[in-house]
Amino acid sequence: MAMGFVEGEVISALQKIFATDDSRVVVGIGDDAAILETSTQSLITSDMAVEDVHFKLEWSSPFDIGRKITAANVADILSMGGRCDFLTASVALTGNETLQWIENLARGMKHEADLAGAHIVGGDIARGAHVVISMTALGHASTPILRSGSRVGDGIFISSLPGWSAAGLELLTRQVAINSPHAEKALSEFSAPSLDYAIDFSRATAMSDVSDSLLIQGSQLAEASKVSLHFDEALIAKAPEFAELSALADKLNTDVFQWIYAGGEDHVLLATGSDLPGIKIGTVESGSGISGVKSKVAPVSWSHFGTSK
Amino acid sequence: MAMGFVEGEVISALQKIFATDDSRVVVGIGDDAAILETSTQSLITSDMAVEDVHFKLEWSSPFDIGRKITAANVADILSMGGRCDFLTASVALTGNETLQWIENLARGMKHEADLAGAHIVGGDIARGAHVVISMTALGHASTPILRSGSRVGDGIFISSLPGWSAAGLELLTRQVAINSPHAEKALSEFSAPSLDYAIDFSRATAMSDVSDSLLIQGSQLAEASKVSLHFDEALIAKAPEFAELSALADKLNTDVFQWIYAGGEDHVLLATGSDLPGIKIGTVESGSGISGVKSKVAPVSWSHFGTSK
Repeated sequence: MAMGFVEGEVISALQKIFATDDSRVVVGIGDDAAILETSTQSLITSDMAVEDVHFKLEWSSPFDIGRKITAANVADILSMGGRCDFLTASVALTGNETLQWIENLARGMKHEADLAGAHIVGGDIARGAHVVISMTALGHASTPILRSGSRVGDGIFISSLPGWSAAGLELLTRQVAINSPHAEKALSEFSAPSLDYAIDFSRATAMSDVSDSLLIQGSQLAEASKVSLHFDEALIAKAPEFAELSALADKLNTDVFQWIYAGGEDHVLLATGSDLPGIKIGTVESGSGISGVKSKVAPVSWSHFGTSK
Repeated sequence: MAMGFVEGEVISALQKIFATDDSRVVVGIGDDAAILETSTQSLITSDMAVEDVHFKLEWSSPFDIGRKITAANVADILSMGGRCDFLTASVALTGNETLQWIENLARGMKHEADLAGAHIVGGDIARGAHVVISMTALGHASTPILRSGSRVGDGIFISSLPGWSAAGLELLTRQVAINSPHAEKALSEFSAPSLDYAIDFSRATAMSDVSDSLLIQGSQLAEASKVSLHFDEALIAKAPEFAELSALADKLNTDVFQWIYAGGEDHVLLATGSDLPGIKIGTVESGSGISGVKSKVAPVSWSHFGTSK
């Protein structure tokens, strides 16, 4: 098979892109394993992205694909109340990629890792029929925040409004071209969802990131905390960006709450507690599951956009 | 698409299989990230295995596939002079797998992790057109052993003879059925290469695992240490199991040194130093690269068996 790159060249290029002089990286890429200065309590999480399931090469640049999967891993560390320190990246390549494409993928990873204050310290390159990217994030938290700490009476907060990524996906799949900043934002959020590094949810009683959907992670958080999450759609409708997302939904004849509740692939943090920053969208009640959902929401497929039937 | 499993069932089954009461696992599978007690200096490595490149579903059981990729990750920690403590596993599944198949894959991972004294603490499940397994190993070493420490005059040692996995692959690809314990060993080593957890290379000056091939990792170690590795084929020919592997090669009209030097996919540790245990196969000399290779060895493809052309 003709290959657009040579493995040695790729590794050498990645070593340059991921180079760091941070003293916490004792030994980086190049030996059998990296040697890192770590906390005595570490957080670890892994997240995989598959071509035509989580991203499409014709829809997203390699830079954005790299950002997206990196942000997905970092978000899982942030949602534990932690900071991401290190990442590894394993990538299956078809052999048709150019060295430039691979470098841009790596630069996207590096860009997002820089935002998080993290370093990419290792990984693997394999051959495959499709591009598959698997990352692992290692971090730490002085006081980890689990999904299980919600108390009845807590408010429910989100770091930003979810649904933009789903809106972008709908624009792409339905091939609707809308010339507006909101449509652009939706497309951008689909390709590389933004992660709010500034929000301070350190006083949250429970937290999760909303990667599958607000309903799925909300249900999981409710179950872990043995409470019910009561969403208040009047509060959601007052959220910043709700009007913009709603206008976009109207243009596509879609219910905006379908995107907000069931969209998926947003890197939004969901937290419970008292007087948290972010957007208040409801209250923790006794009981189980989610309540307060008045909009009719279609069942959410687990399998993202590529292969769901 | 018809799916042989439901994601919730899979995660619940995996949680049971990977359950541990080890106090170092503060929070295991089920939250956004695992919380682990770690050393202040950690080792991390990632390794990916792709269907039809690193394994074939018709050749290997899910249990063996799980063992193989786990051992590949653990071997990279051992080859740093370390111990593997934790693993994450991300798996792309086609949706045609049964729950039983997935459970057996997980049991293979768990089996090998148990041998290593490690726990599987997290991961991800994704959809894909092919099965892709990506693992990350986290470990520690009181004194990490790099590839760069070889000194002129050191002996070169291996934990066991490589080449068995390549022999098994050749039996499978050429569809040669040989009814002998050696052929069985070759097939078994191909499906799930054994890793020698008992060998004590803690006094090695440099170490690497031989996952690509003795020549590739030997060259990398020589380059990192700025020395030459001089292999002594008379010593290699005296190694335990050499006669058996050689007899198998004769039956297939293959040069046994092709398997030993260029085979790949063995979990053999390569170390340099004085009076190490294992099998002595040569001496570290001044210079660069590999010397002493009298046998004619065909160039080694990077891309394993599946897609190499």
